[in-house]
Amino acid sequence: MPDGLTDLIAELARANRILAHEGVLDAFGHVSVRHPTDPGRYLLARSRAPLLIEPDDILEYTLDSEPVKPTKVALYAERVIHGCIYQARDDVMAVCHHHAAAVLPFCIAGRPIVPVFHIGAAIGEATPFWDQHDEFGDTNLLVVKPEEGRSLARALGRHAVVLMKRHGATVVGGGLKELVSRSIFLCQNAEYQMRALMLGAAPPLRRGEIKLAGNVNLMPIVVARTWEYWSTRLNASGAMPPPASDKPKRKR
Amino acid sequence: MPDGLTDLIAELARANRILAHEGVLDAFGHVSVRHPTDPGRYLLARSRAPLLIEPDDILEYTLDSEPVKPTKVALYAERVIHGCIYQARDDVMAVCHHHAAAVLPFCIAGRPIVPVFHIGAAIGEATPFWDQHDEFGDTNLLVVKPEEGRSLARALGRHAVVLMKRHGATVVGGGLKELVSRSIFLCQNAEYQMRALMLGAAPPLRRGEIKLAGNVNLMPIVVARTWEYWSTRLNASGAMPPPASDKPKRKR
Amino acid sequence: MPDGLTDLIAELARANRILAHEGVLDAFGHVSVRHPTDPGRYLLARSRAPLLIEPDDILEYTLDSEPVKPTKVALYAERVIHGCIYQARDDVMAVCHHHAAAVLPFCIAGRPIVPVFHIGAAIGEATPFWDQHDEFGDTNLLVVKPEEGRSLARALGRHAVVLMKRHGATVVGGGLKELVSRSIFLCQNAEYQMRALMLGAAPPLRRGEIKLAGNVNLMPIVVARTWEYWSTRLNASGAMPPPASDKPKRKR
Amino acid sequence: MPDGLTDLIAELARANRILAHEGVLDAFGHVSVRHPTDPGRYLLARSRAPLLIEPDDILEYTLDSEPVKPTKVALYAERVIHGCIYQARDDVMAVCHHHAAAVLPFCIAGRPIVPVFHIGAAIGEATPFWDQHDEFGDTNLLVVKPEEGRSLARALGRHAVVLMKRHGATVVGGGLKELVSRSIFLCQNAEYQMRALMLGAAPPLRRGEIKLAGNVNLMPIVVARTWEYWSTRLNASGAMPPPASDKPKRKR
Repeated sequence: MPDGLTDLIAELARANRILAHEGVLDAFGHVSVRHPTDPGRYLLARSRAPLLIEPDDILEYTLDSEPVKPTKVALYAERVIHGCIYQARDDVMAVCHHHAAAVLPFCIAGRPIVPVFHIGAAIGEATPFWDQHDEFGDTNLLVVKPEEGRSLARALGRHAVVLMKRHGATVVGGGLKELVSRSIFLCQNAEYQMRALMLGAAPPLRRGEIKLAGNVNLMPIVVARTWEYWSTRLNASGAMPPPASDKPKRKR
Repeated sequence: MPDGLTDLIAELARANRILAHEGVLDAFGHVSVRHPTDPGRYLLARSRAPLLIEPDDILEYTLDSEPVKPTKVALYAERVIHGCIYQARDDVMAVCHHHAAAVLPFCIAGRPIVPVFHIGAAIGEATPFWDQHDEFGDTNLLVVKPEEGRSLARALGRHAVVLMKRHGATVVGGGLKELVSRSIFLCQNAEYQMRALMLGAAPPLRRGEIKLAGNVNLMPIVVARTWEYWSTRLNASGAMPPPASDKPKRKR
Repeated sequence: MPDGLTDLIAELARANRILAHEGVLDAFGHVSVRHPTDPGRYLLARSRAPLLIEPDDILEYTLDSEPVKPTKVALYAERVIHGCIYQARDDVMAVCHHHAAAVLPFCIAGRPIVPVFHIGAAIGEATPFWDQHDEFGDTNLLVVKPEEGRSLARALGRHAVVLMKRHGATVVGGGLKELVSRSIFLCQNAEYQMRALMLGAAPPLRRGEIKLAGNVNLMPIVVARTWEYWSTRLNASGAMPPPASDKPKRKR
Repeated sequence: MPDGLTDLIAELARANRILAHEGVLDAFGHVSVRHPTDPGRYLLARSRAPLLIEPDDILEYTLDSEPVKPTKVALYAERVIHGCIYQARDDVMAVCHHHAAAVLPFCIAGRPIVPVFHIGAAIGEATPFWDQHDEFGDTNLLVVKPEEGRSLARALGRHAVVLMKRHGATVVGGGLKELVSRSIFLCQNAEYQMRALMLGAAPPLRRGEIKLAGNVNLMPIVVARTWEYWSTRLNASGAMPPPASDKPKRKR
């Protein structure tokens, strides 16, 4: 296994834990990254709560969302979200699907999330809505079939975030750390937008401001700072498993 | 004592702690499970805050809510809630009564909780209200008398949740882990419903969606994932007592 | 020093820490208890944040709020709140003054807190308002002068809680553990009342219900349960100092 | 290095951590202090999340916000906020720029924060707004150019707090501990003001009350109490690094 892959798998496990610890993911939700050398594959954990994901839990998938190596472990039912977006968007290197508490009220009320402060500009100018019912009628609201995944990818379009009515959100990024930042900033933006609305108004940033502010906090120098911060908070929480060397290895 | 019973008692103690740690129970509230081999009995802790319940705290009750073995320990005053529901509902294997912060505002305002996102479908299509005052006039609002328990069970009917005016909620399940999941999902749903209302609207899922989505997150494969997650969070909180082997046994 | 007093001092230190950990007190606020054998004295900590109070921090005061033994340590500026209430109310054995986050919005908006669920009945039927400005004009809003303390005690009257406009609240109890419970229940009630108002309505319990429910959760059997719970949460927080035996004693 | 400077650097590192732990700072925001013996210089960390700042991270800057010693470490982009305010205000000894969750909704809605309880009086009578767009048009909303910093300092004027539209706030103090207190009290005041508005009204303190109450909680005796409290909470959180003696020194 090339070292780049080993490192990326460790980073993906940590991304899972960070996003869980910061309140983006809970028992549900998942985060994937495109394979570093084979753009036709992606990496995603087996079905497990994100706070608990370790490198040994990460599996390799084709873009049809089938595991590359046959496995008996349980898989996330909604993994087509990831595969279909990687198929539709060459520029997307990482995907996060979640039901964050800050975002759900907007997904339920059908009210769009717009960037209301400079850090929120990382979500882009608009967050389109996708309603599974429009195309598929009554379902259990899970995105399980390839046609459901493709429909969601179409709604996402060239945006960075798509809101899923009465379900949650899916966020994409040009890299894993960028994705983690955007996912957390989306939640902060939604929370502040909601509270500002309760104070009377939550006007969005101007189009020019969004363009200029959108990438500032996704630059490597800033991402290094945020990643160190979220990692420290995660470590201090005591929710980390013992280091890998203390445990018997599991065959992947 | 048969092994199945020992395991179930340990699971019930853990269910108490998980529900306390996740904010469903606080100093008050209780959770019971029907006896695994004798449907005419149920298991419930002595009067103690749920976060602290250990297997040694669990007692066996008849469906008249009398302890099977005479005991001098203090008992929950409202245990008829459990007995009366087990009498009325053959299909119910576990019961949780609580005053969760997310649910209380609805119980006070008299506004029903409805499923507003796919995970919330686990609460079912409707959550009927029960007002102790309607039948019993001024009381201390505790459900202590058998006729009060029976009245509550009638209000519950075939539903999974009954809201108790100016008091709390009672939730039932076809098994203990299903009950834990439903109780937590009810709180999430209530919280998101409230916030969506503040954004303007919180329309319920469609009837067909509720039917299809209602059981998805109560399936064993999902419950294994949520139970592992909530257990890990509980363990990381430092609120667990030392393992039983470190302590002198108490005679039950 | 009689053992009863030593125990009460330890209990008072713990009450300080519990009320801080449960969000009633923060850097400010204080809690006192009447002397167990001399009703003309009370016990209160030196000026220190309640989360940190240890038995060695507790001092003895006359009802004029002067320390019985001369001391050079800093004292709470607002201790007349305690002395004046002990003078005015023979039945009061413990007093807590605080600026809890749940209560402040009501003190600012001038909207009374009323019992909206059975546990909230512990605050009594009404929570009168006291506005320091009415009698004393522009001040720094601290209750420092004996006449200010007496004015506050008059506003409290025979009630269990008095709300202080743009300042906080003062709560009294027939014992220290009763006071701790009432103070925490007041915050829960205020929080739920506010959220119910946002859902449309927060009607109070009926007068008969308040009378019947008011004392239920202040009974020794319930207080034992709540105290054990709050103590366990405090211990798990890691904010406790090392046990006294590990530290050099400080002369009181 | 004189001892006074060493102590102040340690205090600044701790101020960073306290403000992060109390929710004023997150991955972003920064706090500085004027040099204790050279008023033409100030101390500020390298670009790092405030929760992680250690004494070795602190650098010395001129009031033009250039590091006194050449360095290769990354620097905060917005350090002109600090330099320009120290240039404009002789009386300011410490500056904090932040995006606190309690304050952002007001910065987005454009609704001023006013002192609504006695402790909130520490923010002063008014909190002026500064909108970067008024003078500079579309930007990324970061205060990076000296003219932007000077414009912000003009908006601050003789006040203690300036709110930055769709961005955050900048707070100043006559000393580092005073600044920490004011920054935390601003957040509490904003939170309570918002909740009081939802209850119907949040009238400000009277002018005379603000004058009288404004400095009470910034007095050394009170600051000693609050600083000990916030430090204890920080220590209990487990987010502190090991003591410096356990680690190899880094050259500053």
